[in-house]
Amino acid sequence: MTQQSIGIFDSGVGGLTVYHAIRNAFPHEDLVYFGDTARVPYGPKSKRTVIDYSIQNTRFLLQQHVKIIVVACNTSSAVAIETLKEITDIPVIGVILPGAEAAVAATRNHRIGVIGTYGTIRSQAYTQAILSLMPEAKVFSQACPLFVPLAEEGWEDHIVTKQIAQEYLKTLLTEGIDTLVLGCTHYPILKRVIQDVVGTNIILVDSADAIIPHLLHDLPEPRTDDIGKDTFFVSDNEAQFLSIAKRILANEPNSLQKVRLGESWYIEQKVTGSD
Amino acid sequence: MTQQSIGIFDSGVGGLTVYHAIRNAFPHEDLVYFGDTARVPYGPKSKRTVIDYSIQNTRFLLQQHVKIIVVACNTSSAVAIETLKEITDIPVIGVILPGAEAAVAATRNHRIGVIGTYGTIRSQAYTQAILSLMPEAKVFSQACPLFVPLAEEGWEDHIVTKQIAQEYLKTLLTEGIDTLVLGCTHYPILKRVIQDVVGTNIILVDSADAIIPHLLHDLPEPRTDDIGKDTFFVSDNEAQFLSIAKRILANEPNSLQKVRLGESWYIEQKVTGSD
Repeated sequence: MTQQSIGIFDSGVGGLTVYHAIRNAFPHEDLVYFGDTARVPYGPKSKRTVIDYSIQNTRFLLQQHVKIIVVACNTSSAVAIETLKEITDIPVIGVILPGAEAAVAATRNHRIGVIGTYGTIRSQAYTQAILSLMPEAKVFSQACPLFVPLAEEGWEDHIVTKQIAQEYLKTLLTEGIDTLVLGCTHYPILKRVIQDVVGTNIILVDSADAIIPHLLHDLPEPRTDDIGKDTFFVSDNEAQFLSIAKRILANEPNSLQKVRLGESWYIEQKVTGSD
Repeated sequence: MTQQSIGIFDSGVGGLTVYHAIRNAFPHEDLVYFGDTARVPYGPKSKRTVIDYSIQNTRFLLQQHVKIIVVACNTSSAVAIETLKEITDIPVIGVILPGAEAAVAATRNHRIGVIGTYGTIRSQAYTQAILSLMPEAKVFSQACPLFVPLAEEGWEDHIVTKQIAQEYLKTLLTEGIDTLVLGCTHYPILKRVIQDVVGTNIILVDSADAIIPHLLHDLPEPRTDDIGKDTFFVSDNEAQFLSIAKRILANEPNSLQKVRLGESWYIEQKVTGSD
């Protein structure tokens, strides 16, 4: 059993970009990642349901003896972070505030675009976070629901992905933004096509990188010895997770377990790795 | 409480096309519809998970005193139908066999295409059903995972939808098929663009219509008096369900209830309707 790890959860595989940034920044820490692939995506689902799922995921990570929880999923971060902070005494970090800070640091003309799922955009969490840091900012939001299935389908270089990006981003581009927040863990996979559509004058903000300073600040009992261990949990499609993880992390996770939802998540099956 | 109804379940709203066909064919029957909008989509999920979800949905319908169950979801029908028949004595009808029969009846050159979700295509359920009816048939399958999000995004008339359809269907079109099974309840929403891409010489088979003869055959105690009542249940996004239902059914459901998953689904809240 991993003791005193950094816990990370996401609705699925997208949060591996956040995991990857954390692993690089904290080589000595043990990391526990949970991807809720049995109920992905969270983006189109209601606030109530996303809160329910986020609570279940948090309780599961707490059982794994984590000392801090990173909510890699933007939709969960946008609607559930306050509730999650109430159910545990350990620090809980979402991706919204870090992303907002990075956007505020990057913008020169105070005109910031935000793209994300329906749930994230509807919550206005990014808008509120940006305005709390920079009241004079103008924030322009756009839900891009097809970006997640396009990224999962592996169509990041397909011509229709560029056309869909043009369609989604055309209104934002008329607003004179100089900064665009990629408010969904899947969107960095489409970074090249998004940059291509918006042009090189617009800075893209990726919350996977933005979260590291927050983690540095809040991390209890940082470790300096040993090489950190990794433990991965998913609720479904473990083979697909392994293959995507291999692409994002450059090597295959050696400890992946599958969990099921009973009354609460429990470990059903160890897929790779020994105890 | 509705007694002795026809129960229908789907992973979400797509199954309303099946509901609609049943309502038109059986005006005297009470219908109970359950859409698992909290866990949609089923198409990319594993066989094991889709079976689990289908069992939970079936048990919920059994609690509503149904006399027959129609599995409107192609993915559930493809992987779970045998398991569902084992857990109840009432008839359980999936959409695969009806769709296969309609395809076999329609084809002239015995070359049949099938499109569906990853789960449905991977299961080869349509291929097996078609070959059992017409051993000399040649069946060509293609998963079209972006069709569901495109239909849900309401992009049925968008130019990229046509391009994506061309991409998915181009291999099938080189096989000389004369019949194409729309093996997902969402696909009839894209029927016009699919017909446009494949040309008018290819017959499109929609399982929503194909299921009626099966239901006529298996329905216990058919009713002839009174006008049938409708009861709808969803696990999430009840407002969105109402709006899509209004489009498909021409009027808004007057009895919609929301359920949550505890250990089993239970009714949480009545959204519309009295008593």
